[in-house]
Amino acid sequence: MESPIGFGILGCADIARKFCRAVGLAPNAAVVAVGSRSIDKARRFIADNSLPEGTVAHGSYEALLDDPAVDAVYVPLPTSLRAHWAISAAGKGKHVLLEKPTAISAAELDRILEACEANGVQIMDGTMWMHHPRTAKMGEILSDPSRFGQVKRTNSIFCFNGGAEFLENDIRVKPDLDGLGALGDAGWYCIRSILWANNYELPQTAIAFPNPVKNDAGVVLSCDASLHWEDGRVATLSCSFLAHLTMDLTVVGSKGTIHLSDFIVPFEESAAGFSFGCESWFNDLVSAWEPRPSEHVVSTVLPQEALMVAEFSRLVGAIKHSGAKPDGKWPAISRKTQVVMDAVKASIDNGSQPVQIVF
Amino acid sequence: MESPIGFGILGCADIARKFCRAVGLAPNAAVVAVGSRSIDKARRFIADNSLPEGTVAHGSYEALLDDPAVDAVYVPLPTSLRAHWAISAAGKGKHVLLEKPTAISAAELDRILEACEANGVQIMDGTMWMHHPRTAKMGEILSDPSRFGQVKRTNSIFCFNGGAEFLENDIRVKPDLDGLGALGDAGWYCIRSILWANNYELPQTAIAFPNPVKNDAGVVLSCDASLHWEDGRVATLSCSFLAHLTMDLTVVGSKGTIHLSDFIVPFEESAAGFSFGCESWFNDLVSAWEPRPSEHVVSTVLPQEALMVAEFSRLVGAIKHSGAKPDGKWPAISRKTQVVMDAVKASIDNGSQPVQIVF
Repeated sequence: MESPIGFGILGCADIARKFCRAVGLAPNAAVVAVGSRSIDKARRFIADNSLPEGTVAHGSYEALLDDPAVDAVYVPLPTSLRAHWAISAAGKGKHVLLEKPTAISAAELDRILEACEANGVQIMDGTMWMHHPRTAKMGEILSDPSRFGQVKRTNSIFCFNGGAEFLENDIRVKPDLDGLGALGDAGWYCIRSILWANNYELPQTAIAFPNPVKNDAGVVLSCDASLHWEDGRVATLSCSFLAHLTMDLTVVGSKGTIHLSDFIVPFEESAAGFSFGCESWFNDLVSAWEPRPSEHVVSTVLPQEALMVAEFSRLVGAIKHSGAKPDGKWPAISRKTQVVMDAVKASIDNGSQPVQIVF
Repeated sequence: MESPIGFGILGCADIARKFCRAVGLAPNAAVVAVGSRSIDKARRFIADNSLPEGTVAHGSYEALLDDPAVDAVYVPLPTSLRAHWAISAAGKGKHVLLEKPTAISAAELDRILEACEANGVQIMDGTMWMHHPRTAKMGEILSDPSRFGQVKRTNSIFCFNGGAEFLENDIRVKPDLDGLGALGDAGWYCIRSILWANNYELPQTAIAFPNPVKNDAGVVLSCDASLHWEDGRVATLSCSFLAHLTMDLTVVGSKGTIHLSDFIVPFEESAAGFSFGCESWFNDLVSAWEPRPSEHVVSTVLPQEALMVAEFSRLVGAIKHSGAKPDGKWPAISRKTQVVMDAVKASIDNGSQPVQIVF
């Protein structure tokens, strides 16, 4: 059996704790190093997260990138720092698992993707829900014209109520750290889910709703937009730091409808549900549905983030051990997500005028 | 005990069958007459629907309005005929239960409301789901700041796939019969649900999404719009004859979220559910929700349409037997719905420019 892929963690962000647990659960990965600007912080992180003996603490991100035991890096740094460190990592031949949003703009992401391609390393973004078996199960239905017909309408909402402390201090409301605010943090998932439901076909136009909420520094705290395809398909996205935790995805086709209310983080770790209505109609007096939508539950032994780590590590292992090429599907999806986000941002900035989406 | 309110049915529309059953179930109402342009059709309708012996068949709508046994009329005629017959009925002192959309425009509805007011008769529109006890239960939550906070975002979808025959022949696609098409038929419910969720406070602006689908005669088959309040609240509505049966309502507040997927016609007649999340957050590693939203089921002995008939008949009985004034709540809600619909229609017609909503 091949040795597990060795991960180095760049920075001790809160989300890195979840990631470390995921690496521990994945059968083909291990955390081998943690880098922080403070070596003490790195050491504390290793202890607090019960990482394996032998995990090395580095006192700088550069040192971590020079560690030969590190095959791949996980980059949960603030968005404004991602390009620099992802490109540096690629330059050192490290594979890159990059938190979302992957960059401040598609142009910036392109620089990352070019660096990864030039160095033959794998890149994948940290959109964990993509790896849940529920997502695959729903994907089978969506892509089956006999059960779903053609997609017509997609609604995606992700909001949470950050509260006063978050709105004051979190990196996600700071223009120099996560300048895309709620659009980058929450809207990323909405845009991804919409692309996923629409077979990754890019919409033609994005139109932001008027009057998004911004903080004094101009960072978006809440915004909405509609997306429009040439064939008439429509989607809406709604993302906010100011409303109660909600993560809805509704996909309506000509023959079927899929609903779920926990698409990003399932209500429970080991099993996740969705409802699927197929060719429903009414009874004779329009007083009930026939058939009513069915409820589906998809169990998973590993949590979705561990499945993400396992899939990424599988791709990295194929490169490392079998001379495979980096997989192109994941960076292409990241790029499409970022391109749509660019268009939504441009429409916010131009006062809700329609913005053409150019790939 | 007072005698039941006597209903006359104007026309033998399909929906009138559901209505007749509802009257039969309501404790304070009875169908006493059916009017059609063909007396044979009226007789057949009475027989087919097992209406009580003694139910009178009239060969014209005028004759029904002259029937002294008729206290109130139910008007399921095509939208373009509603104003004429509702005003005629009011002129004869008959109370009016009017199908939706109540009129082609708010100006037309105003003529109906004026006639009802001038003649001291009750008017109510046929929005059945308003009368389900589930609606009242959800309303309690929505109006409780300690459980729901302030409403921030409302999404409402009603679509069904009419199919080829419907799209060719149904009155709802004919410009001279139901000129508002999917907006009038399906969008009515969406707009009503949005107003209901927002305490009937009118939005300031409506913006239709670009490129609604219309048939060759210019009738809307599918359209979407966003609604915007001065305080930043946002709602979207999506109505269509071209997508699978879906009737979603999602209301997101600062502290809570309500979801249901059968708001207009519950999946089952005797019990209807909704989910309510309140102050949900994540567990320590953001791998599950705490608490997860709770599921609520509200049972009802009578179906919602019978409760509607009972409530309308109660109001009519109070006027008839106790000299009460007509209730002003229901016509006010009808008018607000129609006013918002006017604005969405105007935005469709002006190429998706924002339209101010003026009450």
